[in-house]
Amino acid sequence: MNLEEQLLNKINSRTKPPGSLGKLEKIAYKIGVIQHSLTPVLCNPTILVFASDHGITDAGVSSFPRSVTHQMVLNFVAGGAGINVFSRQNNISLKVIDAGVDFDFHGHADIGEAKIARGTKNMLYEPAMSPDECLLAIERGRESVRKEVIKGCNVIGFGEMGIGNSSSAALLLHKFAGIPLSECVGRGAGLTDSGFEHKFDVLKSVSVKYDPVNPVEILATFGGFEIAMICGAILESKRNNMVIVADGFISTSAFIAAHAMQPDILDNTIFSHLSDESGHKAMLEYLNGEPLLRLDLRLGEGTGVALAYPLIKSALLFLNEMASFESAEVSGSEIC
Amino acid sequence: MNLEEQLLNKINSRTKPPGSLGKLEKIAYKIGVIQHSLTPVLCNPTILVFASDHGITDAGVSSFPRSVTHQMVLNFVAGGAGINVFSRQNNISLKVIDAGVDFDFHGHADIGEAKIARGTKNMLYEPAMSPDECLLAIERGRESVRKEVIKGCNVIGFGEMGIGNSSSAALLLHKFAGIPLSECVGRGAGLTDSGFEHKFDVLKSVSVKYDPVNPVEILATFGGFEIAMICGAILESKRNNMVIVADGFISTSAFIAAHAMQPDILDNTIFSHLSDESGHKAMLEYLNGEPLLRLDLRLGEGTGVALAYPLIKSALLFLNEMASFESAEVSGSEIC
Repeated sequence: MNLEEQLLNKINSRTKPPGSLGKLEKIAYKIGVIQHSLTPVLCNPTILVFASDHGITDAGVSSFPRSVTHQMVLNFVAGGAGINVFSRQNNISLKVIDAGVDFDFHGHADIGEAKIARGTKNMLYEPAMSPDECLLAIERGRESVRKEVIKGCNVIGFGEMGIGNSSSAALLLHKFAGIPLSECVGRGAGLTDSGFEHKFDVLKSVSVKYDPVNPVEILATFGGFEIAMICGAILESKRNNMVIVADGFISTSAFIAAHAMQPDILDNTIFSHLSDESGHKAMLEYLNGEPLLRLDLRLGEGTGVALAYPLIKSALLFLNEMASFESAEVSGSEIC
Repeated sequence: MNLEEQLLNKINSRTKPPGSLGKLEKIAYKIGVIQHSLTPVLCNPTILVFASDHGITDAGVSSFPRSVTHQMVLNFVAGGAGINVFSRQNNISLKVIDAGVDFDFHGHADIGEAKIARGTKNMLYEPAMSPDECLLAIERGRESVRKEVIKGCNVIGFGEMGIGNSSSAALLLHKFAGIPLSECVGRGAGLTDSGFEHKFDVLKSVSVKYDPVNPVEILATFGGFEIAMICGAILESKRNNMVIVADGFISTSAFIAAHAMQPDILDNTIFSHLSDESGHKAMLEYLNGEPLLRLDLRLGEGTGVALAYPLIKSALLFLNEMASFESAEVSGSEIC
């Protein structure tokens, strides 16, 4: 028997009707295959939150002012945001990284320093990043993961904070997946009808203005520093054979970019949830991803990762701790 | 401002876009209303697993032999079942109660003794319980909750173990909700096509044989000792204004019975998950219940309660621990 067969055998011989733990059985199997082990373990779970500003906010595409990005970063380091609460609850290490916030944090000890610039350019007029900036962001994302690998982390999730970044995510979905723009654009943090129409018009103009071809060019033109860093972080996590957990709409857009560069990242990816942001469903379908949670979340920050983490842990615990029919002397199923 | 308005205010002033924590916001609001508090807390979370045998198993309605009920009870007290693993993980107290298992546990110290009889009668020929047995089971369910209330428990969930009990649950759904039997009967622990057809034929015969009118008569005729005890436990939990968490198809059938006796139990009820057992969806719709999880579980034992519990906790933690826009000095939404 190869490992895959042994894993299925082990899952099916736990004291439960076959298949009765549903999606948890699929997660247990997937992580067993990733770690090539019948007793997979999760070590030092970590969430990296990348924060950055976006030039496109000058075009009025968000219901929150740009200053909220740096204010929320300070909220993260003070421990008061949603991601702080859920990470504390579930014993997940949390790191906040300044990918390109339009604010001077003066070397704050609790903020990872990786700033490329104080926000991207306004893509209504020029590409958000130069290809060099994009490659640098990818590399800094890789570095941020290497720091966690050294500490023994083997399961990692990626969140983000960046007013305006649902515009980038929508355009990346549109360009990488070839899905009509109207199915990619959503209300972000909560636009009104007229705000939403305006956002769509702006993104339509942006979308027809450029014709980048390769993945780095597409990511540079429409992305953000935080999205490019997550993309690099994903690639590095895959290189280290980690379990990689996707969050919502923005986080998943980085998985779409990373997938275009290296499709096998999906072998290591777990999708924590289906977001309430329209467009996320299309993203998950494009990546053939099955979400664990459907809680109508649309907060970002990695909150979906933190909330889904106990279930990922449950999947390994049932595999490792449940008795087998044989050991517990429980009769198996009869043909009926 | 009344408490409901104050709660909504508090939820909306946390540092996140309004509504962006989706179902968690609804849970936080609901528990706040139950406890009439802006800072609700969960104390001594507990799952009671009621186990019992069913006369209808003589008619071959299950893919597992009847002996599995007592074998699984012994697996519970040995700590090797799914519910043990997930309760341990999430720090939930677990109690196993013998409601009517066809086995002599010889006063095992870790099994709550509440046995009504060694299994119900075969309802193909006579009602599963007499009305007196049913009332006694309801009362013993109430007692089991009172024991937890004394210990300071204010959040409780109910699981079950009983080979054959998906037949009872299907008939209770059919009778209480008036839903066609074909939409109520499922494959339980995993029947084949022919096994499923046989189960349906048996339940059709049972269904047309009796015409009970009041809730206790319906529950006595088609239920099981464990389902009647859960029904009593729900009523007592409501009397003590606890947060009550429903599990899957069998557990929820007890909520349907309790709801017929006292509709306001729903004010205190959280539905942990939508099960993979066909019929559970109709149950939740009938009770107007929104499930937290959709993991294709069909294990019972209270596993859905244990797996959903971290999310229920998350809902209160975000309410109690997140900073407000004001305290964190984060700008709110602009009209856009």
